[in-house]
Amino acid sequence: MSMQDSKNFRESKDYIQSLERGLMVIQAFSADTPQLTVSQAAAATSLSRPAVRRILLTLEALGFAESANGIYSLTARTLTLGYAYLSSKNVWSLAQPFMREFTDKTGESCSVSVLDGNEIVYVARVQAKRIMRINLDVGSRLPAYATSMGHILLAHQPEVKLEELLKDIPFEGFTSNTITDREFLKKELGEVKNRGWAGVDQQLEEGLRSIAVPILVNGKVIAAINCSAHAGRVSKEELRGTYLEMLRETARDISSAITASGQTI
Amino acid sequence: MSMQDSKNFRESKDYIQSLERGLMVIQAFSADTPQLTVSQAAAATSLSRPAVRRILLTLEALGFAESANGIYSLTARTLTLGYAYLSSKNVWSLAQPFMREFTDKTGESCSVSVLDGNEIVYVARVQAKRIMRINLDVGSRLPAYATSMGHILLAHQPEVKLEELLKDIPFEGFTSNTITDREFLKKELGEVKNRGWAGVDQQLEEGLRSIAVPILVNGKVIAAINCSAHAGRVSKEELRGTYLEMLRETARDISSAITASGQTI
Repeated sequence: MSMQDSKNFRESKDYIQSLERGLMVIQAFSADTPQLTVSQAAAATSLSRPAVRRILLTLEALGFAESANGIYSLTARTLTLGYAYLSSKNVWSLAQPFMREFTDKTGESCSVSVLDGNEIVYVARVQAKRIMRINLDVGSRLPAYATSMGHILLAHQPEVKLEELLKDIPFEGFTSNTITDREFLKKELGEVKNRGWAGVDQQLEEGLRSIAVPILVNGKVIAAINCSAHAGRVSKEELRGTYLEMLRETARDISSAITASGQTI
Repeated sequence: MSMQDSKNFRESKDYIQSLERGLMVIQAFSADTPQLTVSQAAAATSLSRPAVRRILLTLEALGFAESANGIYSLTARTLTLGYAYLSSKNVWSLAQPFMREFTDKTGESCSVSVLDGNEIVYVARVQAKRIMRINLDVGSRLPAYATSMGHILLAHQPEVKLEELLKDIPFEGFTSNTITDREFLKKELGEVKNRGWAGVDQQLEEGLRSIAVPILVNGKVIAAINCSAHAGRVSKEELRGTYLEMLRETARDISSAITASGQTI
């Protein structure tokens, strides 16, 4: 469905708005707001209180939410929804052992993500023992323009699609290193495509640097894989030297495992 | 919401049936059926084809599904729904480093789950490098009565609640070891509660054995943690000796980390 088709369908009588609203309410819960009253969920979604109340009661009756004294939280059943995707794309579980191997060798975190609009979505992650400030997990979303995996995934988009995506990026300076200029980002993406890897140094968060490479299956970029580390612990040279070579090897191992499994993405 | 309240609400005019149906269609996708046509999704959910068609088009317009030649699949955006739960209950990410430590030492998989009705739902998992036949991930569901974590979680239910749950179990003999007798299961659960750990030997799948212990926070069982292994590789004695002691230590470490974080479940 093109963006225009999607827009048209959302205005048609076949569009189910109550499904959209239900999914919005589920997504209103987060690390910062694990518990919500009807009023708070209404404020977070810009929906009316009666509409949100019906949605939360429906989610509770279905076992996706629970409440005590008018305060709602999600239940583990909600994981079943994300699991429907994960299990249907179980190529990502094939990546896990190779990612663990990488993390065991380097002591740094390793993640795989795919592009969803202007954002990357984590589909697999092995976190190093040394805990970072950002808490990332499968399903986490980050702005593509400020991450190394995002640079890989954007760089391999068809030109027309890339232009469309770049047009809509709401640039924000997370740190003094964040790329906030569209033309500068385009130039960087061109270089990323040529050299086959991306490096981001403290563009998303101070003290965080990462490198990423593509995962290729049948000549197509199906995802990006990265290694992220504390800037104070791992130098740029280290990251772009030994670590990059190990990450490339991990990406190749994952590609081979996916190809051998005969599964499609 | 009690089971009766839930039943009553589902028959009231405030209940949003289209939300229920939308969530059913998402859950129709799985490892066995990663791609579905409208007809296949209708058959899997027992909904009408026109209803399923509208739902799939709505999910596609919202970016949760994609289609090519009339065949639908889910997108990574679906993970965002499960992530809403995971990030709002980020106590489970606190467990990860301790679980990895356990898996590094033993070479066997380690998982944490909670109870959802008669089933357990995986909320955290570290898979050993040696891959098992069953592919389990965060969000996976298994029948509580045939798993060690399920035995722990059932054993710590209040008596009335346990009776209610036991009444509804659709017992099925997965192997010749599976407990399929209600009274026998109740007796086993009593012993599990007394000895503080559960062991299941090839009750869910031939060749698979596991042990589990509770994770306690402020004297309350908030989850179960297990170690599962190939029966041909790890003996019952090994599992119930060294591994059990290490698993208890891991459970204690996780409890302490959760308590120290000041987070609630």
